[in-house]
Amino acid sequence: MSTFTPVASLKGQSVASATQFSRADIDALIQLSLNMKAHIEAGKTIDALRGRVMTPLFFEDSSRTLSSFCAAMMRLGGNVVNFKVETSSVNKGESLQDTVRTLDAYSDVLVLRHVREESLEQAMGVATHPIMNAGNGAGEHPTQALLDTLTIHAELGAVDGITIALIGDLKKGRTVHSLLKLLTHNFALKKVYLIAPAGLEMPTEVLAHIAADVQERGIVIEEACNLSPEIVADCDVLYATRLQKERFVASAACDADAMAAFEASKANLLIDKARLAHAKTKMIVMHPLPRVDELSTDIDDDPRAAYFRQMRYGLFMRMAILFSVLS
Amino acid sequence: MSTFTPVASLKGQSVASATQFSRADIDALIQLSLNMKAHIEAGKTIDALRGRVMTPLFFEDSSRTLSSFCAAMMRLGGNVVNFKVETSSVNKGESLQDTVRTLDAYSDVLVLRHVREESLEQAMGVATHPIMNAGNGAGEHPTQALLDTLTIHAELGAVDGITIALIGDLKKGRTVHSLLKLLTHNFALKKVYLIAPAGLEMPTEVLAHIAADVQERGIVIEEACNLSPEIVADCDVLYATRLQKERFVASAACDADAMAAFEASKANLLIDKARLAHAKTKMIVMHPLPRVDELSTDIDDDPRAAYFRQMRYGLFMRMAILFSVLS
Amino acid sequence: MSTFTPVASLKGQSVASATQFSRADIDALIQLSLNMKAHIEAGKTIDALRGRVMTPLFFEDSSRTLSSFCAAMMRLGGNVVNFKVETSSVNKGESLQDTVRTLDAYSDVLVLRHVREESLEQAMGVATHPIMNAGNGAGEHPTQALLDTLTIHAELGAVDGITIALIGDLKKGRTVHSLLKLLTHNFALKKVYLIAPAGLEMPTEVLAHIAADVQERGIVIEEACNLSPEIVADCDVLYATRLQKERFVASAACDADAMAAFEASKANLLIDKARLAHAKTKMIVMHPLPRVDELSTDIDDDPRAAYFRQMRYGLFMRMAILFSVLS
Repeated sequence: MSTFTPVASLKGQSVASATQFSRADIDALIQLSLNMKAHIEAGKTIDALRGRVMTPLFFEDSSRTLSSFCAAMMRLGGNVVNFKVETSSVNKGESLQDTVRTLDAYSDVLVLRHVREESLEQAMGVATHPIMNAGNGAGEHPTQALLDTLTIHAELGAVDGITIALIGDLKKGRTVHSLLKLLTHNFALKKVYLIAPAGLEMPTEVLAHIAADVQERGIVIEEACNLSPEIVADCDVLYATRLQKERFVASAACDADAMAAFEASKANLLIDKARLAHAKTKMIVMHPLPRVDELSTDIDDDPRAAYFRQMRYGLFMRMAILFSVLS
Repeated sequence: MSTFTPVASLKGQSVASATQFSRADIDALIQLSLNMKAHIEAGKTIDALRGRVMTPLFFEDSSRTLSSFCAAMMRLGGNVVNFKVETSSVNKGESLQDTVRTLDAYSDVLVLRHVREESLEQAMGVATHPIMNAGNGAGEHPTQALLDTLTIHAELGAVDGITIALIGDLKKGRTVHSLLKLLTHNFALKKVYLIAPAGLEMPTEVLAHIAADVQERGIVIEEACNLSPEIVADCDVLYATRLQKERFVASAACDADAMAAFEASKANLLIDKARLAHAKTKMIVMHPLPRVDELSTDIDDDPRAAYFRQMRYGLFMRMAILFSVLS
Repeated sequence: MSTFTPVASLKGQSVASATQFSRADIDALIQLSLNMKAHIEAGKTIDALRGRVMTPLFFEDSSRTLSSFCAAMMRLGGNVVNFKVETSSVNKGESLQDTVRTLDAYSDVLVLRHVREESLEQAMGVATHPIMNAGNGAGEHPTQALLDTLTIHAELGAVDGITIALIGDLKKGRTVHSLLKLLTHNFALKKVYLIAPAGLEMPTEVLAHIAADVQERGIVIEEACNLSPEIVADCDVLYATRLQKERFVASAACDADAMAAFEASKANLLIDKARLAHAKTKMIVMHPLPRVDELSTDIDDDPRAAYFRQMRYGLFMRMAILFSVLS
């Protein structure tokens, strides 16, 4: 019935980490995503997962990721059980494992989001069906890294050879950790700028993790705390992430210091019309959203603002993943 | 695959206002609704919107309207993303526009309910897919007006020539505003009674809006504050709306005054068995529900009590609208 | 389109009580459930209820039962309206009857869970479509009793002739009431142990209800307050239910007494590896879940631990019921 080719190595597999994918897997997922995008945008529908059931277990709110996974499953013809953690037996003292076993008994695939990193392994230990990791604490967010890679490929034509700046809170941002690992392990990037406020730099563990790949591929890594005009001009991708006031409060001597540091960082990192004036004609601005103050609405209508299209690529990447896992 | 004819002028369009529809549109929507009702009630199903996705954005609770839209989409073969405003990025400071853009990226159609009137225009300004207005503050509720019109047509055989009383809080009731505009603009009504407590009369802006149509068609408009036996006897439709105690408190000198005014108004406007004794044999009682005290359960079994059937007409009208917009 | 045979006597019927089913109905439901299980586990799908809509009205939380019903409907090709009681017109003072009438107007079947026993009859009094009772206060939980019966049959090959122990809070446990009635009325059990802490014994009304069947079939009933090695060794089924601390507090002179009684009861009734050492090789441990302290995780990997499989049987039993009611 279906005319799409699933990525065979994903069949029946959980998606736990951005590092589990080979370059061939990624290329195949990108191609499948783009095929599905073309199909859907031509007004056609897909019925491959009819009668199949996905259950999201979101122990932490993330309405964007949740909606994206749900729409992806539905556009494949499947359906979604609306499990509400807040009214579940978790409140009666049930363990994560028992909750996972319950929904696993009814479902073909689970999507797990949890504040604790170890939750993913606990869930995978008892589930008989695949689990999609939609963010496990300080751990990973692999489908976000894959959709980001798809976005770069689709917008710029290739991922190899690009210069990218990762901007914002690089310390706690699980999204940028997953993305950096996936990109350096699989693509011959030219250069990566890591631009973060003091105290919120990319963790040394992540840098250690990518060191061998960076060396082997000759990728230049440059750290900075200011998104200078020179950096803007050099980049094919500006990838911004949310700056959270709370993170500054935690590391400052007093509230006034924290606010001053936060405001200064915003000024140093803000992507707006003025800063984008230095950028190339063919480049893109990305952001996993939601944004607050670090990404100005004054560039929303600029064709280089790819962050809304990025969400739509996310839909098709998640369709490609679910299709491959469940086909 | 489908044997139904969509209303062509709605294709790809948002449904924003009761005033956007021509008489031909309304007649076609009524006919399509009745065709779908007959089809479903014959035990057949419809698969026209398979693989299509609707996302309701309800920033204000309205479980009846929400359930009706969801069931309508599902009975057309489509599916519904369960977006929860209360756990969404709105709580992280995200703008309405960014939230709309997000769900718009995943969906074929959005359904918006919001307390602020201007929200609708803001959402339509950024969405690339049609938006169904399910109530925008003091603004409009167009699908309710359409389903009310369908109910009158289906129950009485015609809308032209009828005498209708709109009863209750006519000041804040967006439902009756939309309905009055739609009816006077498109149908040769005989007479409209506007029956409201002092202080809760139909706003002069709405009366000004309909003045030209009323004049041209020779529709008699009569205001009153008491649902007298003579009015009951004259009407083909008694359309009651909810009386809310809070509205009286706001306009009274003291709580005791407010309660007295509220109790007096209830007595003046209550539709019950005693009042219905004065009504014609062939007429209907309507109410958008939920009811509290203004509509007695003692007429629930009277065949003229059309308010439960009215909800079911709503299902089929929303099916006709979604089918036409998305086909 | 479908190759399954619905249980004809359920067509269009509400499922209100475990006592409404004949032995022939139960046998047919078990067979249909097992056929559907084999079909689904062979990777095939069912499309029998496409375009049909179920709405759960859960006035009391029960995420397990809710998820199970939703997945069952979806695996039959049907869909589910996500009605949220907590944001519904119930908060505007709407009666249960009006809420039921509303969702009944949009749906093909309702699933009702409510804290008040009389809610079921009130709902059935106004609904035009079948209602599935998913637990009505101290009343019944018939689909749980049916899935428990299916589990026993599927795991042990037969229900006739077995010895079963019902263990835990037998006073308030609506699940064990429904199960005991269904089993004694329809199956030639050999023996039933009723094992409860003092004050939480099986109510005399339930014992009176089953007395005639027990006598006629010669079923031995034995009450105890301790799950002794002899009882464990004698049983084909150990059916445990949740022990709730609150229940002890209510009946004790002081909190310290309550805690002591609770801890003693836990020790007397706990099913763990040590106790299971006395059991037969071919027997099963069941539990409706969630568990807290009365069922140890140290037997989770024992093949006789049937409580996770029991949830999966529940999915297929609810599919068999919905299919029969709506086909």
